[in-house]
Amino acid sequence: MINTKNPVVAVAGATGAVGLEMLKVMEQRGFPASEVRALASARSVGRRLTYAGAGATGTDSAKDGYVEVAELTSEAFEGVDIALFAAGGDRSMEFRQAVASAGAVMVDNSSAFRMDKDVPLVVPEINPEDISWHQGVIANPNCSTIQLTVVLAALAKLAPLKRVVCSTYQAASGAGAAAMDELYNQAQQFLNDEPLTIDKFAHQLAFNCIPQIDIFLEDGSTKEEWKMVVETQKILHNPNLNLAISCVRVPVLRCHSESVNVEFEQAVSVEEARTALENAAGIMLTDDPSQKEYPMPGLLSGTDDVYIGRLRKDSSVAHGLAFWCVADQLRKGAALNAVQIAELLL
Amino acid sequence: MINTKNPVVAVAGATGAVGLEMLKVMEQRGFPASEVRALASARSVGRRLTYAGAGATGTDSAKDGYVEVAELTSEAFEGVDIALFAAGGDRSMEFRQAVASAGAVMVDNSSAFRMDKDVPLVVPEINPEDISWHQGVIANPNCSTIQLTVVLAALAKLAPLKRVVCSTYQAASGAGAAAMDELYNQAQQFLNDEPLTIDKFAHQLAFNCIPQIDIFLEDGSTKEEWKMVVETQKILHNPNLNLAISCVRVPVLRCHSESVNVEFEQAVSVEEARTALENAAGIMLTDDPSQKEYPMPGLLSGTDDVYIGRLRKDSSVAHGLAFWCVADQLRKGAALNAVQIAELLL
Repeated sequence: MINTKNPVVAVAGATGAVGLEMLKVMEQRGFPASEVRALASARSVGRRLTYAGAGATGTDSAKDGYVEVAELTSEAFEGVDIALFAAGGDRSMEFRQAVASAGAVMVDNSSAFRMDKDVPLVVPEINPEDISWHQGVIANPNCSTIQLTVVLAALAKLAPLKRVVCSTYQAASGAGAAAMDELYNQAQQFLNDEPLTIDKFAHQLAFNCIPQIDIFLEDGSTKEEWKMVVETQKILHNPNLNLAISCVRVPVLRCHSESVNVEFEQAVSVEEARTALENAAGIMLTDDPSQKEYPMPGLLSGTDDVYIGRLRKDSSVAHGLAFWCVADQLRKGAALNAVQIAELLL
Repeated sequence: MINTKNPVVAVAGATGAVGLEMLKVMEQRGFPASEVRALASARSVGRRLTYAGAGATGTDSAKDGYVEVAELTSEAFEGVDIALFAAGGDRSMEFRQAVASAGAVMVDNSSAFRMDKDVPLVVPEINPEDISWHQGVIANPNCSTIQLTVVLAALAKLAPLKRVVCSTYQAASGAGAAAMDELYNQAQQFLNDEPLTIDKFAHQLAFNCIPQIDIFLEDGSTKEEWKMVVETQKILHNPNLNLAISCVRVPVLRCHSESVNVEFEQAVSVEEARTALENAAGIMLTDDPSQKEYPMPGLLSGTDDVYIGRLRKDSSVAHGLAFWCVADQLRKGAALNAVQIAELLL
């Protein structure tokens, strides 16, 4: 059994966009670690990452506190209770056994194990009970999946869901810190009329939209779209839920947006939905058309909730609602949800 | 009757983004005008607009040819055969009578008359026959409507449409030339960490998405969303078509994109749809996932077709297809469609 009072926590991939955000979230939430190990590839060893929370390595003059990066190796997990992984699916697979051998629980942000039958896929507001049957690994869902499921779970309490159609407006951060830099630099190149550097995305992202995220599958959908379907079904315990997903990358830095049409089996009024969403954990309604108030991805970086606006009736089906939702891809879409899972373990 | 061989053409709002594009389109298509009058507000009078086509005012040393701006007044329509209006709905209403008195036909890009029973709303690839019953005004549909209807009309030949769900990714150009400048300048301000100038849009657009276009209506939808519903029904002669529309402004300069899910009354295969779209006028299929090929709004400025990609089965309903479509908002979405209507009049 892991130490649930003052656990030793490892963050694998600590220098990445999600890893850094995991440290920030743990610090902000007062995660009761007795030690935090920041693990990354050899070239980052010795780097000091800002972290002033419990279990920090030390303090330095420039900042409140820090953790010093150690190399991500099998030995690094000795004595660890909880290993938060944000180092990509290959690293998660490579070190799964080492984490298990150390007696630690892996909370994995990659897609490597999400659909495995012995791996719970958890959004703490929705299916916290699923962590009870973990076999050493708990998977953190895809970023776009998390924000969609938080809303769908709240709405599904009102009436069974019949079909969900969702088009995404996904930020650069989903492809990592270097991808955010690419968007930033590319926008400057575009404005300067200079040649564009295109490396992290298949095409120019600045002043453009790219209707592809992750690789294509045989049926013409992308893997991101497939993930959103099967992960949502797994999290909601609703394997037959009909979902039509279209994923699009937009030139936004770090919050994902989704335009969603939900069809229910029975009537659900806008007022009922509004009340349910207002009372749901992890959801913030920002929805006042008269004041031009609705959530926007460029203005919500660093927030924790799933923001909902544009809630309205969809009269094109018998029992339809439409809404717009936004969440910080690095917070609720990744780091926050993973730390919340770790909190469930305590 | 108007002179259909060498008509006198007036462009009202000639200095705006759409007006300038109308001149460009007429020139490029060899529109057989005997005279082109560029009309705008008093402050633009005397300005020379590049136009080297038939009916140009003259030539100057710097450019091939030009038209000189005259003031938009009732008298300006004397002797005019076709008046292309892109000066906003107020101007269209103000000068409707003057255009009629001059015996000219108004092709109006504004939303002022689109839903009037005596005004045909025309997309030349779809319902050219509707111009036959015009009473002096023919309306050019909303930009987002045009690109959607071009595709829906081609698909509706395969099987009756049951329901359409569409989320838009609309460019700054839909709000005019100054709005495009605002996005451009705002992006530079954002990169420079300077205060942002926000004037043409309700909120920051650079590195953001704004889920509101036009004003809000009582039912929580926006006027842009309503336009797309009722205009599509009118153009397709299908007043009962179920449409669920969500309109979002994205930081793109001048092409609109749409993520669309279509439900049919009967089975339509991806292959049948592909063939129908390949053979449809005004449509270009750019759809090769293996080569990461699909239409993208940042790369299609200045093009005339409605580009379609990501065509695939939507398995969330009995007979569903999904696709992504992109068109230049200033060309097919406005100026080109208006000039095509004028060509139908000849």
